Amino acid sequence: MKIENIDLSAYPNSEKVYLDGKIYPIKVGMRVVHQYPTVKIEDGRRIEYPNEDIYIYDTSGLYTDPNYKVNINEGLPRDRQKWVIDRDDTIEQEDITSEYGRARRDNKELDAIRFPKAHKPRKAKEGKRVTQMHYAKKGIITPEMEYVAIRENLDNEKRGIKSHITPEFVRDEVAAGRAVIASNINHPEAEPMIIGPAFSVKLNTNIGNSALSSGIEEEVAKAVWSCYWGGDTLMDLSTGDNIHETREWIIRNCPVPMGTVPIYQALEKVNGDVSKLTWDIYRDTLIEQCEQGVDYFTIHAGVLREHAQLVKDRLTGCVSRGGSIMTQWTVLHNQESFLYTHFDEICEILNKYDVAISLGDGMRPGSTYDANDRAQFLELDVLGELCKKAWEHDVQVLIEGPGHVPMHKIPENMERQKKVCDNAPFYTLGPLTTDIAPAYDHITSAIGAAIISNLGTAMICYVTPKEHLSLPDLNDVREGVITYKIAAHAADLAKGHPGASVRDNALSKARYEFRWKDQFNLSLDPEKAKSYYMDSRRNAPDANDRFCTMCGPNFCAMRISQNIEEKCKEY
Amino acid sequence: MKIENIDLSAYPNSEKVYLDGKIYPIKVGMRVVHQYPTVKIEDGRRIEYPNEDIYIYDTSGLYTDPNYKVNINEGLPRDRQKWVIDRDDTIEQEDITSEYGRARRDNKELDAIRFPKAHKPRKAKEGKRVTQMHYAKKGIITPEMEYVAIRENLDNEKRGIKSHITPEFVRDEVAAGRAVIASNINHPEAEPMIIGPAFSVKLNTNIGNSALSSGIEEEVAKAVWSCYWGGDTLMDLSTGDNIHETREWIIRNCPVPMGTVPIYQALEKVNGDVSKLTWDIYRDTLIEQCEQGVDYFTIHAGVLREHAQLVKDRLTGCVSRGGSIMTQWTVLHNQESFLYTHFDEICEILNKYDVAISLGDGMRPGSTYDANDRAQFLELDVLGELCKKAWEHDVQVLIEGPGHVPMHKIPENMERQKKVCDNAPFYTLGPLTTDIAPAYDHITSAIGAAIISNLGTAMICYVTPKEHLSLPDLNDVREGVITYKIAAHAADLAKGHPGASVRDNALSKARYEFRWKDQFNLSLDPEKAKSYYMDSRRNAPDANDRFCTMCGPNFCAMRISQNIEEKCKEY
Repeated sequence: MKIENIDLSAYPNSEKVYLDGKIYPIKVGMRVVHQYPTVKIEDGRRIEYPNEDIYIYDTSGLYTDPNYKVNINEGLPRDRQKWVIDRDDTIEQEDITSEYGRARRDNKELDAIRFPKAHKPRKAKEGKRVTQMHYAKKGIITPEMEYVAIRENLDNEKRGIKSHITPEFVRDEVAAGRAVIASNINHPEAEPMIIGPAFSVKLNTNIGNSALSSGIEEEVAKAVWSCYWGGDTLMDLSTGDNIHETREWIIRNCPVPMGTVPIYQALEKVNGDVSKLTWDIYRDTLIEQCEQGVDYFTIHAGVLREHAQLVKDRLTGCVSRGGSIMTQWTVLHNQESFLYTHFDEICEILNKYDVAISLGDGMRPGSTYDANDRAQFLELDVLGELCKKAWEHDVQVLIEGPGHVPMHKIPENMERQKKVCDNAPFYTLGPLTTDIAPAYDHITSAIGAAIISNLGTAMICYVTPKEHLSLPDLNDVREGVITYKIAAHAADLAKGHPGASVRDNALSKARYEFRWKDQFNLSLDPEKAKSYYMDSRRNAPDANDRFCTMCGPNFCAMRISQNIEEKCKEY
Repeated sequence: MKIENIDLSAYPNSEKVYLDGKIYPIKVGMRVVHQYPTVKIEDGRRIEYPNEDIYIYDTSGLYTDPNYKVNINEGLPRDRQKWVIDRDDTIEQEDITSEYGRARRDNKELDAIRFPKAHKPRKAKEGKRVTQMHYAKKGIITPEMEYVAIRENLDNEKRGIKSHITPEFVRDEVAAGRAVIASNINHPEAEPMIIGPAFSVKLNTNIGNSALSSGIEEEVAKAVWSCYWGGDTLMDLSTGDNIHETREWIIRNCPVPMGTVPIYQALEKVNGDVSKLTWDIYRDTLIEQCEQGVDYFTIHAGVLREHAQLVKDRLTGCVSRGGSIMTQWTVLHNQESFLYTHFDEICEILNKYDVAISLGDGMRPGSTYDANDRAQFLELDVLGELCKKAWEHDVQVLIEGPGHVPMHKIPENMERQKKVCDNAPFYTLGPLTTDIAPAYDHITSAIGAAIISNLGTAMICYVTPKEHLSLPDLNDVREGVITYKIAAHAADLAKGHPGASVRDNALSKARYEFRWKDQFNLSLDPEKAKSYYMDSRRNAPDANDRFCTMCGPNFCAMRISQNIEEKCKEY
């Protein structure tokens, strides 16, 4: 198996560099963009003024390290495993604990599609909790915490940019539940990252096949592709065949934390018959995925029996897949959801692997009409209750949010969430600010995502142009990721994230000086920026024209402006 | 000459309808989308419940009226001319007044590219002012005012939706300078529209050739194309050859108000030599364009000599073309700009034709770094002063705004503008909320445009994916318009524009009921929405599947949700 159809060479003049830890012997990867010098003619002489290197937060992992040879059948190196072992609070399991996991392993027919390398799962020692929150509450700074502190800061220290983000600060935020480092001990391939309002805004991408679509290879390619363009986490929402095997391939090759919605697979196990879902099946699914290395689970435990009645007053009912499944279950059984009644047990499973809970918003509005209604906010109250319960078990928590929300109703979502959930990181889908633009919902939602991130949302779930219409392909993934990088970065700038403006200012300087190649290389999508420019220029790629076709040579404001500067100097 | 390469059949199941005036015998065009019925099975019987017609604000003019036969060589019918003549305060000129205009007409070499039909220009009678503001201040409701009141409301009355927008309200807003109806008496082909914070948010599109690019035919096609997709006004920013003739073609075929930046053409007349620009050349250019029918002029009269010094403290200098030209002029001549010193004369020319002034922001920031700086806000103070001066001459005024502005600095722009310019309509470019995404600046700027529109900006100038890189083609125009329709509509929803949510709710209902065709037809870009859906379905276009490939049949939340509704009914 190999990654097909994806080209990982879109970042020219970039170099992979690693910054060293001070507390731990860790190496934190980032991307550096080298720039061309600024050329000036002074007293008839050509003088070159060098331009500084620009450090960029890098989610692509080893895929952009020229010293690393990609081998999908091998998976990424399991660097973080040593950190886990060093803590001496986990043990390697003799065998897979999950019944379903064992059955899949023993099924010879699956050999052809199975990830070739088996790893024995680890688990907390009896009586131990191995979550980052647990360590943080004890005052311990883990390598993961130092890692994310360095990663968030890039070269801020070297530049003398003041930053509130230190390993100690990270620890305190995680201890208080205001930030999450999703890092299952069985996913040591992932590079630690942090989700919280005090850090840079993160974006999640969704991949996954449905019954109608793509295969394993395509999903692995999509996973690597989304990390390459800037996805901070990845949710595998597969609902088709071979979910277990697909997930294994993705996790072993995934440099970012991965999330799932376990109820999807549980439902597959009962052939789509909601009435047959049971706590036992769900529980085994959780363990199966904990052992594989999923870093966070979306769990719709806030959907209560009483909420079902509220759905029928809505324009678009219940549009959360997990939420609609659980609502239907409570109606069919006329009893409270097993996710709610077994919530403590869930937490006690998760804190053995350090899997974070992302409390799903089963009642998120599917239209602007339904935004901020009773169903949505009643569920949020339940999520707040569950969040505090999870924290008692030292389980890290994200809170999921809407959905479709017109702009004037966005602030109430953030304010209520902060209050009800004691500042647990908010993780929203968009929100989409209007319903009238299918095929452009990456844009309707990027508007909402930028606004709500600026108000304090910690992670935004991307939306692709195919939302509401069909499954995204590679191009859609790229478009969705870049669009959400824009929303996240716009919020980082607005929130004053330390050093966030360095890249903007460098790109603007390059633009003003007609250093076209630097302008492209510093951009979110160098390839596309360059191709748009070249299409119209129809000349050599190293053209350093002092104008573009938008205004033509005589009307280039920046050129005229530089002339004015020259002129002003004369006075 | 004919319109090539553009297909005006992207709105299926739509009909052009006209609502009648009550005060005047006017007909206001809009688009109605017919919907399919909702089909339910009740007691084993198939019952069809009809769905209502949805009225949509329509900027496409007669191009979407099947009873109108497009003839580019003829131009659109000059329906509004009767209204102008009926006011009995204008006269038809015997000849073109502009010296340059006459020279172009008399140049036989231009016959091949000339618009074939000549119209004699009209002008106010001696001592008269013929602006909508003038009439409004006198308490007169013009047909234009009634027209825009009907247009803004669509079928609100029939639906019983309360609206503050009456012809009287329109008049009062125009009289107070809070709204603009740009409607040169020499552009009677245009359908009246209104720009003001109390009305639906409008979007402007830019077209225009530069020295390196497109010809007349392409520009006319782009103009019609941008109106077709939803552009409310159109600026012709041509700077290449034959500006005069290109403009004539566009105006005669343009159903929306058209704006220009006259200094561009003035500069062409002196072969790009800024030092040779004079008031006389500029004055003749204004008259030339007034006689052709340009509806509003961007005039960078707020750029003062003292501002030139401030440019050099910036990261990206002066990025406004007009602003950089005038700044250079003040530096070269070491005197105040003739646009500023002759401002009263400009107003006295414009109120003879009812051309509105769009006060250009020559000092708009070209990077987030330069946002809200001294140069920008000093110029804004001057614009406020000039705005009040123009109002004394009964000239309608728009105020142009930035540019590149990070989200946290957007509110100050709106607040200052409102205060300094006494609530004159604000007309902004974006703003772009980050600098790092060339090739995606329609998105970086749509975020800012939605936010600032929600705060009270009346019109937003679109940005296409080619911004900063090259001239947009037809696809870019479409992408830019749809993106800005999203921003504008998101703001309409948030501001509670009367009836704005009707379309969202209808589309959401169609989505929930799996009326795919209605979902497409009600969307901003039916063609693209449908094509994304069909690509993955690979079956007949009338497929009414109760799911999409995103989730597949078993995991469709909406389908499950409908089952829950059924189930809940049983209790």
